[in-house]
Amino acid sequence: MRYLHTMVRVKDLDASIAFYKLLGLEETRRYDNEGGRFTLVFLAPPGQPDCPVELTYNWDGDEGLPSDSRHFGHLAYAVKDIYAKCAELQAAGVTINRPPRDGRMAFVRSPDNISIELLQDGDALPPQEPWASMGNTGHW
Amino acid sequence: MRYLHTMVRVKDLDASIAFYKLLGLEETRRYDNEGGRFTLVFLAPPGQPDCPVELTYNWDGDEGLPSDSRHFGHLAYAVKDIYAKCAELQAAGVTINRPPRDGRMAFVRSPDNISIELLQDGDALPPQEPWASMGNTGHW
Repeated sequence: MRYLHTMVRVKDLDASIAFYKLLGLEETRRYDNEGGRFTLVFLAPPGQPDCPVELTYNWDGDEGLPSDSRHFGHLAYAVKDIYAKCAELQAAGVTINRPPRDGRMAFVRSPDNISIELLQDGDALPPQEPWASMGNTGHW
Repeated sequence: MRYLHTMVRVKDLDASIAFYKLLGLEETRRYDNEGGRFTLVFLAPPGQPDCPVELTYNWDGDEGLPSDSRHFGHLAYAVKDIYAKCAELQAAGVTINRPPRDGRMAFVRSPDNISIELLQDGDALPPQEPWASMGNTGHW
């Protein structure tokens, strides 16, 4: 397992980038998704590219951001085998809120409802049951 | 500047440690504070001690945890000179919510109210004005 980032949603991308740069972080990666109409910007301390904060900016705004809770997004970790990890979590009673239908991404929640993103390290795995046909449960 | 941790508050410390260990993280450090009646537990992925999640457990419970927002705590970074960094932030219009009165710790908030902890790297600096006598502003 490998730590990837802590994600926060931002309303004003330029103001947010300016703020995190002022803190001392550097922009390490940027990803514009025209189809999904969102931009991801990763900023990390100099010499620590593995410890970024990920800013998520939705071009059309975030629907329903009633409290701070929606601004904090999640903790993200890469895992060696996303199916094995989800099976292990499920066996221990953890709900797989967003099953890894695509062999690539899953979401669970901590006992305090902190959203945790699990990503397959490297390429996505081939689709596999029971995950491929499993629906979502709740929010994450 | 150096990334330190992402902090989340937990209601049930044992259940939370079990959850994060199940994910694959290892406990790297634990700090019990009898006076403050709280426990901090750091858990990080194997080989990534610099990327921990910090669990904060208040022995007497957290007063008023009305929403998820209070469960997410903050992003924490160490800085070389906490006075210089706070002066730079303030000059740029950032409110220093918790000034570094003790030469050791300050809190600010991002444009989206994400709480950011700044800690002096190494030993605390000697008290220095205007910080030493500056009161708190708002919450963080």
